[in-house]
Amino acid sequence: MIIVIQCTDQVGRVAAISGVLSAEKLNIVSLREHVDVGQNHFYMRVHVEQDAPAGPLTEKLRAVLPADAIVQVNPQPEKKIVVMVTREYHCLADILVRHHFKTLGAQVLCVIGNHTTLQDICGRFDVPFHPVLHDPADKVNFEAEIETIVTEHAPDYIVLAKFMRILSPGFVSKFAGRIINIHHSFLPAFAGANPYKRAFERGVKMIGATAHFVTDELDEGPIITQQIIPVNHTYTATGMVKAGREIETAVLARALQLVFEDRVFVYQNKTVVFE
Amino acid sequence: MIIVIQCTDQVGRVAAISGVLSAEKLNIVSLREHVDVGQNHFYMRVHVEQDAPAGPLTEKLRAVLPADAIVQVNPQPEKKIVVMVTREYHCLADILVRHHFKTLGAQVLCVIGNHTTLQDICGRFDVPFHPVLHDPADKVNFEAEIETIVTEHAPDYIVLAKFMRILSPGFVSKFAGRIINIHHSFLPAFAGANPYKRAFERGVKMIGATAHFVTDELDEGPIITQQIIPVNHTYTATGMVKAGREIETAVLARALQLVFEDRVFVYQNKTVVFE
Amino acid sequence: MIIVIQCTDQVGRVAAISGVLSAEKLNIVSLREHVDVGQNHFYMRVHVEQDAPAGPLTEKLRAVLPADAIVQVNPQPEKKIVVMVTREYHCLADILVRHHFKTLGAQVLCVIGNHTTLQDICGRFDVPFHPVLHDPADKVNFEAEIETIVTEHAPDYIVLAKFMRILSPGFVSKFAGRIINIHHSFLPAFAGANPYKRAFERGVKMIGATAHFVTDELDEGPIITQQIIPVNHTYTATGMVKAGREIETAVLARALQLVFEDRVFVYQNKTVVFE
Amino acid sequence: MIIVIQCTDQVGRVAAISGVLSAEKLNIVSLREHVDVGQNHFYMRVHVEQDAPAGPLTEKLRAVLPADAIVQVNPQPEKKIVVMVTREYHCLADILVRHHFKTLGAQVLCVIGNHTTLQDICGRFDVPFHPVLHDPADKVNFEAEIETIVTEHAPDYIVLAKFMRILSPGFVSKFAGRIINIHHSFLPAFAGANPYKRAFERGVKMIGATAHFVTDELDEGPIITQQIIPVNHTYTATGMVKAGREIETAVLARALQLVFEDRVFVYQNKTVVFE
Repeated sequence: MIIVIQCTDQVGRVAAISGVLSAEKLNIVSLREHVDVGQNHFYMRVHVEQDAPAGPLTEKLRAVLPADAIVQVNPQPEKKIVVMVTREYHCLADILVRHHFKTLGAQVLCVIGNHTTLQDICGRFDVPFHPVLHDPADKVNFEAEIETIVTEHAPDYIVLAKFMRILSPGFVSKFAGRIINIHHSFLPAFAGANPYKRAFERGVKMIGATAHFVTDELDEGPIITQQIIPVNHTYTATGMVKAGREIETAVLARALQLVFEDRVFVYQNKTVVFE
Repeated sequence: MIIVIQCTDQVGRVAAISGVLSAEKLNIVSLREHVDVGQNHFYMRVHVEQDAPAGPLTEKLRAVLPADAIVQVNPQPEKKIVVMVTREYHCLADILVRHHFKTLGAQVLCVIGNHTTLQDICGRFDVPFHPVLHDPADKVNFEAEIETIVTEHAPDYIVLAKFMRILSPGFVSKFAGRIINIHHSFLPAFAGANPYKRAFERGVKMIGATAHFVTDELDEGPIITQQIIPVNHTYTATGMVKAGREIETAVLARALQLVFEDRVFVYQNKTVVFE
Repeated sequence: MIIVIQCTDQVGRVAAISGVLSAEKLNIVSLREHVDVGQNHFYMRVHVEQDAPAGPLTEKLRAVLPADAIVQVNPQPEKKIVVMVTREYHCLADILVRHHFKTLGAQVLCVIGNHTTLQDICGRFDVPFHPVLHDPADKVNFEAEIETIVTEHAPDYIVLAKFMRILSPGFVSKFAGRIINIHHSFLPAFAGANPYKRAFERGVKMIGATAHFVTDELDEGPIITQQIIPVNHTYTATGMVKAGREIETAVLARALQLVFEDRVFVYQNKTVVFE
Repeated sequence: MIIVIQCTDQVGRVAAISGVLSAEKLNIVSLREHVDVGQNHFYMRVHVEQDAPAGPLTEKLRAVLPADAIVQVNPQPEKKIVVMVTREYHCLADILVRHHFKTLGAQVLCVIGNHTTLQDICGRFDVPFHPVLHDPADKVNFEAEIETIVTEHAPDYIVLAKFMRILSPGFVSKFAGRIINIHHSFLPAFAGANPYKRAFERGVKMIGATAHFVTDELDEGPIITQQIIPVNHTYTATGMVKAGREIETAVLARALQLVFEDRVFVYQNKTVVFE
């Protein structure tokens, strides 16, 4: 059973929490705790050997913690997600395969696409696909339609798996801290459009990908994980796009695993990740 | 201040330890705990914001822990080491440079060489060098001489920085758990002699290095850290040796940092490393 | 257009070959040449800007090369493969997805499974699946049946995508140099069965995967590519299996890309790979 | 013997060059050729088995190449360098050690420091150190003094090994294509001052280093090589500086090796690197 806690820091937090667990005869087999001293903020992830009813334990933990504490006992082990895509298949197909073989750690409720290109692959995995085609003159209705679908499905997270439209602050604010994006560069380098083209022009010797939570500012949200692969002079911009798919797929998969295993804490514009 | 604890596991260990720290008004800013469930063994490393006298706190912690507990409060922040070498300079030079600029996290008491090749570089850094030349017919006296020098210096650790002689079980047992070796392959591949030659013959696409504690069985001791670098068909066996120096230096440096920062626990033939 | 050539070495090989290309007004935009001096063997891969009829050009190149030369002009850009599997889905699904979206660089003719577990996923991608169930008492017929299916499809390569049966030397010899396997360790470490279990017991700090051509000796064939990922004390043997899937999938995908792009030369027990 | 050639591209370049080598009975054991099709530019690096007098061979090669060709036959195998530093020791010490043990591939003629901090370590390796202290009000004389020292030593390359002053376009233009810098970020991210502080504030999950040739535009010159290491929430900005030293040292060492082995071609704002 996993327990995750986040609150303001104070001497005695670990003692208070572990005291509750010990009284319940719960054995801690893995514990990660981190205090952001600058922010005076406390983060903890505990793996307990036994299971226990979440409700009463949560109450007992809250009783020894400050009012701002976020306490999750045995957070839902299988998250629910909605995936949003455009035309590129690689991240979506990876998610669908893991979903199908039950190794994703989450259930894909549906896929929303602003093109119909990926409808077929969703059908092959019996996952509902909702086309919401983009009329550039009418972003308001475009987002309203997406919002309706998302709201109906009530997912834990929205995963932007190469969704190539920028969502408005209004939309983002409705799902704050719950939208995960894969950006095709090692941020903060090449934020915004056409990162591979710019990487090619700059002559970089590596390209990367960054998975992050989406905030109002484009490509500026809290980073979950990022990685790179080496490139060289033989790569055209198109070759970089192709090579980049591999790292995009891997980085998004890793980020989702970390989030779905309750290893990621967001506080202001950063993450604490207990890998 | 760092506190490291290792003992048999039981419900309530974290509560007991953190209770003592809380009572002393010590704030835990980083905590790593791991239980090896198979072995029923408990490992913990705590970073406390404040300092406190080690003696009384150790006593208070021992009072809440079983008799087999190993408790170290504020373990000596600067370790003392003796380095043993043969003829290759790269690992030694890296250690000497860090020692000289006080970034090693340890003090190099002296260097023992079974060749005199590296005497000069030690002199340039004002580090004593003791030549103990090897008479193959007389391993007993060879090791006795080394033992005398080591014992006189009373180091925390002996670092084999490309020391190309095999030490006898008798010698090793006298410094059990305190001898660190760098082996020039990704163990368990290519244990023993001439790993690069064998790697070349096998046509591997990566070569590596492994830092480990030395035990009676050659290249079989607990692994601290290991890494690899890619190679290809353009590498001769000699080219692999040359490329391997980079990774050997890096892996040994990383292992020493982990050990000197009290992040490495040894139990039976494995390590727990809180990176 | 790609041209690959392999033959015994002699002064003037590059001049002879490039002379032919120049006379045909073909511009070399990328050339990789390597001589294995110990074996006196010559390898070359040329990327020519223009296309040209393969037949006549091959003849002209053969005319300036020794009798043992292997010359391929514009080797079939889309290879044909048969995939063999047991029960694990990850490598197969990755291949099927790339095949489906035409980014594999090869056509999957069919899949042969010694269990029926993966029949369903093949059906979802409209790829024929042939179950050949293994009667341990009758390996001869088991392999004969596989051979019949393979021979009917006449693939360029047989890909063992986590096929967990050892093929007999007789079978292997019929498809010499054309069977590619993914082994779940960084060979030569942990050759044979249960590599993750043994990696766990040894306490290694990294696990890996190796793609290689299959020869008579188990896990001893020419290595195409291999990679590793870090692990630590928190990984159980099962956790290593799970983490290993990611690297197995990535390493096999990379090996197939290299082979399908005609970047891999095999000579005796090694490969030359022009990445 | 190494031969490197760079010129405008045209059909027949490889044939012309290899024809000359073949006529001289020179055997090509390794050849890398690349054409930048967009720029119509030709790059080649040849490793020839035998040695030959450079002068006559250069003439013969020039005779078959266009007037803009840069031809180097057997380029000076040991380059000469001047190193410029400020106060950080790690890159300089690595260079001095390799220089001392004759594995740098270059001779360190002298070190210029705008602080005297590193005078001592140079003395320990018998390398002349020239302090040129910076009067912020007088950059002109500061650079003039440096120029005098550099000019006297006539190095092939100037290596900025954590030299923390920005050199003026005037200075840079005098040594165009011959100044190599190590920047402590994965460019183009965090160009300019305080990259680690900004990396910390952004919450990146990796930090890096980039070795590049210096041009008039700060941190915008042709990139030779770059790499990253993972970081996480436990790293303070200071911790990133410390961890960054390892990657800075490694990246600069790798870049120097590539340059000194004549593997790096610069054309406009990019490099072709035949690794």
